[in-house]
Amino acid sequence: MLPVDTAAQQQEPAESPFGWLADADRVRRAAGLRRELRPRAADSPLLDLAGNDYLGLTRHPEVVRAGADACLRWGAGATGSRLVTGTTALHAELEAELAAFTGFEAALVFASGYAANLAAITALTGPGTLLVSDAANHASLIDGCRLSKATTEVVRHADPDAVRKALQGLHDGTARDADGHQGHGDPDARALVVSDAVFSVDGDAAPLAGLVAACRAHGAALLLDDAHGLGVMGEGGRGSANAAGLAGAPDVVCTVTLSKSFGAQGGAVLGPAVVIEHLVNAARSFIFDTGLAPAAAGAALAALRLLRREPDRAGRARQVARDFHRLLAERGLDVTAPDACVVSVRAPTPGSALAWAARCRDEGLAVGCFRPPSVPDGVSRLRLTARCDLTGRQVRRAVDVIAATAPPR
Amino acid sequence: MLPVDTAAQQQEPAESPFGWLADADRVRRAAGLRRELRPRAADSPLLDLAGNDYLGLTRHPEVVRAGADACLRWGAGATGSRLVTGTTALHAELEAELAAFTGFEAALVFASGYAANLAAITALTGPGTLLVSDAANHASLIDGCRLSKATTEVVRHADPDAVRKALQGLHDGTARDADGHQGHGDPDARALVVSDAVFSVDGDAAPLAGLVAACRAHGAALLLDDAHGLGVMGEGGRGSANAAGLAGAPDVVCTVTLSKSFGAQGGAVLGPAVVIEHLVNAARSFIFDTGLAPAAAGAALAALRLLRREPDRAGRARQVARDFHRLLAERGLDVTAPDACVVSVRAPTPGSALAWAARCRDEGLAVGCFRPPSVPDGVSRLRLTARCDLTGRQVRRAVDVIAATAPPR
Ligand SMILES: Cc1ncc(COP(=O)(O)O)c(C=O)c1O
Ligand SMILES: Cc1ncc(COP(=O)(O)O)c(C=O)c1O
Repeated sequence: MLPVDTAAQQQEPAESPFGWLADADRVRRAAGLRRELRPRAADSPLLDLAGNDYLGLTRHPEVVRAGADACLRWGAGATGSRLVTGTTALHAELEAELAAFTGFEAALVFASGYAANLAAITALTGPGTLLVSDAANHASLIDGCRLSKATTEVVRHADPDAVRKALQGLHDGTARDADGHQGHGDPDARALVVSDAVFSVDGDAAPLAGLVAACRAHGAALLLDDAHGLGVMGEGGRGSANAAGLAGAPDVVCTVTLSKSFGAQGGAVLGPAVVIEHLVNAARSFIFDTGLAPAAAGAALAALRLLRREPDRAGRARQVARDFHRLLAERGLDVTAPDACVVSVRAPTPGSALAWAARCRDEGLAVGCFRPPSVPDGVSRLRLTARCDLTGRQVRRAVDVIAATAPPR
Repeated sequence: MLPVDTAAQQQEPAESPFGWLADADRVRRAAGLRRELRPRAADSPLLDLAGNDYLGLTRHPEVVRAGADACLRWGAGATGSRLVTGTTALHAELEAELAAFTGFEAALVFASGYAANLAAITALTGPGTLLVSDAANHASLIDGCRLSKATTEVVRHADPDAVRKALQGLHDGTARDADGHQGHGDPDARALVVSDAVFSVDGDAAPLAGLVAACRAHGAALLLDDAHGLGVMGEGGRGSANAAGLAGAPDVVCTVTLSKSFGAQGGAVLGPAVVIEHLVNAARSFIFDTGLAPAAAGAALAALRLLRREPDRAGRARQVARDFHRLLAERGLDVTAPDACVVSVRAPTPGSALAWAARCRDEGLAVGCFRPPSVPDGVSRLRLTARCDLTGRQVRRAVDVIAATAPPR
């Protein structure tokens, strides 16, 4: 047992080592950037335009029934790492169907999309690799770059020419890793270009054709995070890579989440079988993490099968997003043109964004409010998400509320 | 929509940028270190000594029922980040009960224990911080150190004197951060000591009294990962920090998982309220990750309540571990003395460990097989886990099988 004797008698410290946190809190409050959790009820009366349940599946009877059944049949947890006890036949089934649906050779399921991104980036790069990362990439991709031992070059948002220039450095020797090693002359010099396929804050699609051309010109691999594309982009929601003819390509890897369109939790990496096998053997956030809970795997699988049966959900969700954009723009709001289901409306300041979201809530509307540091450009905004099951009436009412509660510009 | 035209026409690369993965695979095969997933059936006939379900709760009727009900009632997913739509009243309830049970002021639930560790380490450190990390710490703590901007000093396993020496460097100016900044003379020079409370591979408990004394002598904070202690250590399973009289201390933070004793998925950080509030505002793997699925939160809460009602499960699980140790040692096997529920049996080589585990499986026993790089010291071993619901007969039969299938020493 533990040596409890002396620890319990040990005097508590005179001064907390966390005193500095009070200062950090004061700074956040002064800047209007303090965040608070707001627990919601199971039967919240708010119209939800804040979540990422694009296909309206998270509470679909078939999906929740499948999640509940998986929990009853397989247990509440996976009980161990995927390599020990955490792989059930249900995980294998989900992986096979995910790969088949999206058009990739193989798939590997993770406990979260975050973990999938950390895995793909760290396991596919090394000290000699050049990582080229879009400036607006999601935090989990950025953390993957930080965890990797590669050299990371951050390039201008959605700019294939900037990617080309960065990759050019790999061959002419201007790119160096953290220890000052040059890529030049190294026959193994590798490069991985990393980008959201649909950017999470503004909802714009990455210039995939330009990116893959830049990669292929330089022998680089392309990693796309399709968290916000799976289920809504491409034919029947098969995702951005599939839509661009890149699914199954030997040089393209895609990460997705099961927590958005598929209404559950978890993530996956899709790619060539050799990549997936390597992740099984080398990705720390795969090897050292408990497998995804059966309920989430079961629910995601049910969502995938439902989408196969009802492929129109994807196009309807995108149409609702375009409707939001058109109607909000007509009201003179500063709204981004959506490529997928995310619609972003800019606000003058963090404080006004927060107050705007609060007024929407008072009027029965849940909208996302993104402020620094959760926005790539420092501009606060409301983030609205379209769902395929919103009616025209709900959309118009939401637009009315958002316009009526908008801060003066 | 996407610019699909040129991407689809783009020629696939002549050479895959992932060609190097075939070499990596060859190296692994040659070293006997290749890993494969082995999907299990829902009704596997194997006796499970490999998972981390120490309290036998992952398939307990009350726990799976609560998980299933939460899925039906709240939906299959949390639908968004905890700060947007991903906090339900169920999450708040779980957090309150976790804090009360373990004796900490506040708790914050994450999608995984991995994410909780990344969050705690990165948000509580900065470029000026000295991170002191035990050499046998779990991969998620190591990744947290790598992601953090602090200077990390790795110290000898379970050695409070080594921690003292490392902390001493903070004041005398020998510790430097990655940019060469010295801690010396900086009034804000901070330090965080990080350790598994129960080490995941060998199951030994950290020297908590010595660690906290070293921390307090130098004004450092202590972060304990109690993934393998929650539910089994301390009175009624209240965890290692509680057992050591450290729960609720102003300078101690604890991370736990909901995926082991609590039979579900997820993780949590426990600590002073000011720390939890800071994590809500600053921890990237909290802010940018979808909230834990309701099924996992509901199952974990049910497990916690069940353990409160049946506190003896904790002590029984530890007793089973001691029985394993005694009986295996009597057979002359090289087995570690367990402080919690993990029992580790050393094997001569990775290959013999793998063959040993395979022979156990042939005899109806699922045991963990840990090989490099999943072992801190490079020594391969079988990893057995005790469960409170194993009968004496099951334990004896397991010991017979393990002894009979052991490789020659
Ligand atoms: C673009 C992107 N990638 C990855 C993630 C992480 O996925 P998850 O929340 O399932 O861990 C998210 C959202 O959370 C995201 O928006
Ligand atoms: C010591 C330790 N910390 C953290 C984790 C990560 O927890 P989780 O698997 O719930 O993400 C694990 C196991 O997976 C562990 O053994």
